[in-house]
Amino acid sequence: MRFTSEQRLDDGVLEREFTLGEIPGTLWTPGSAPAPLILMAHNNGLPKAQPRLVARARQTAAYGYAVATIDALGCGDRPRSAADEQARAELRRAMRAGEPVDEIFESVVGPMVEKAAPEWQTTLDALLALPEIGGPVGYSGWTALGIRLAVVEPRVAAAGFFAGGYVPRAQREEARQITVPLLLLLQWDDEGNPRQRALDLFDAFGTKEKTLHANMGGHLGTPWFEMEDGGRFYDRHLK
Amino acid sequence: MRFTSEQRLDDGVLEREFTLGEIPGTLWTPGSAPAPLILMAHNNGLPKAQPRLVARARQTAAYGYAVATIDALGCGDRPRSAADEQARAELRRAMRAGEPVDEIFESVVGPMVEKAAPEWQTTLDALLALPEIGGPVGYSGWTALGIRLAVVEPRVAAAGFFAGGYVPRAQREEARQITVPLLLLLQWDDEGNPRQRALDLFDAFGTKEKTLHANMGGHLGTPWFEMEDGGRFYDRHLK
Repeated sequence: MRFTSEQRLDDGVLEREFTLGEIPGTLWTPGSAPAPLILMAHNNGLPKAQPRLVARARQTAAYGYAVATIDALGCGDRPRSAADEQARAELRRAMRAGEPVDEIFESVVGPMVEKAAPEWQTTLDALLALPEIGGPVGYSGWTALGIRLAVVEPRVAAAGFFAGGYVPRAQREEARQITVPLLLLLQWDDEGNPRQRALDLFDAFGTKEKTLHANMGGHLGTPWFEMEDGGRFYDRHLK
Repeated sequence: MRFTSEQRLDDGVLEREFTLGEIPGTLWTPGSAPAPLILMAHNNGLPKAQPRLVARARQTAAYGYAVATIDALGCGDRPRSAADEQARAELRRAMRAGEPVDEIFESVVGPMVEKAAPEWQTTLDALLALPEIGGPVGYSGWTALGIRLAVVEPRVAAAGFFAGGYVPRAQREEARQITVPLLLLLQWDDEGNPRQRALDLFDAFGTKEKTLHANMGGHLGTPWFEMEDGGRFYDRHLK
């Protein structure tokens, strides 16, 4: 793991870019160390530099957590194959046209989760070797990747998921195997995430310690207090 | 309003029994005054002395709120007509037998809400005249009564409801008229409250500022942290 740049934010949080082999990442650490770690991934492989993710990561770090994100293989600004690019273009077109997107979504996101998960695990190995990061480990964000990691990665002790309307078949199945505490946050009128599917997914999670929070409005309308509620969820399980 | 007994609890909360005409009530006030007020009602007219309600009221008062509850007409230990008693016996029998209960429930709880709401309003008048109680006013508990009060009583500024699987027809209609911020707390496997009805009710509430919290388990399985989450909901709107 090689740090390539760093800046100290106003609230004392240290924000560092790093590379780990081919993997580019960002790590935020609070003033106090060692801190518990939250892996934060944006839905469906959106870039790690996306401003909403960055804002959420900075706030979470200021709240006392180390936060890390990466652009995994096929995600964010990492190069994609011509076939991947075409599948994504087709997904965008179908969504705009209001056509059924299940199969296209499956072909885009299914392989993306398969490729991303091992890179997140490699990153986790490297992060936990840093003295400023303690256990235990939480996960926050992209539902499909989080399901996979919660199932294959015993170091993940709690998971917060967002949306969950479209999740690849493999992860809908794996959801039943999750045993860690879980918070699913959904927007009641999320244009891109059918509500009933998110509720079905919540029902399917295997863990007995699961909580659903739903608020009004579209995908980007999550109210500010859910950030605090999320913080308290992680506090209960990681501190 | 006449106070008939009082005791000071360990955490400084003053617990007083009162009568207001025919209405028996309990008022909990925190050490600091004047405090915002929460009207706390138990589902479907259970007695105000029921230990879970008392525990919740005491905790809420220790958290900085004045809390009041009453046994309204037809509720708790107040005398009931022979017809009321018979309808309730029939409801219990049908529930035990696993028979459909909608119509019986309607005949028991519909009139109960009609009779209870004016007494809660009378009590509110008297409570707000006390120097130790400030505005604004929140509501907590019994969904059907809370819907009615949130619609007819402009002094109610925020409402937290529990369960919501069975709600009389009149209140299912009135739900669309609610405009105050609202938190609906439900238990995913609540044996007495069909989940889909609670979700439909949440969808129907007219307010744009509504949040749903759902947790695993049966009617009595609400996790402890929802008490804190509820406290923060009231803090956002009443403090």
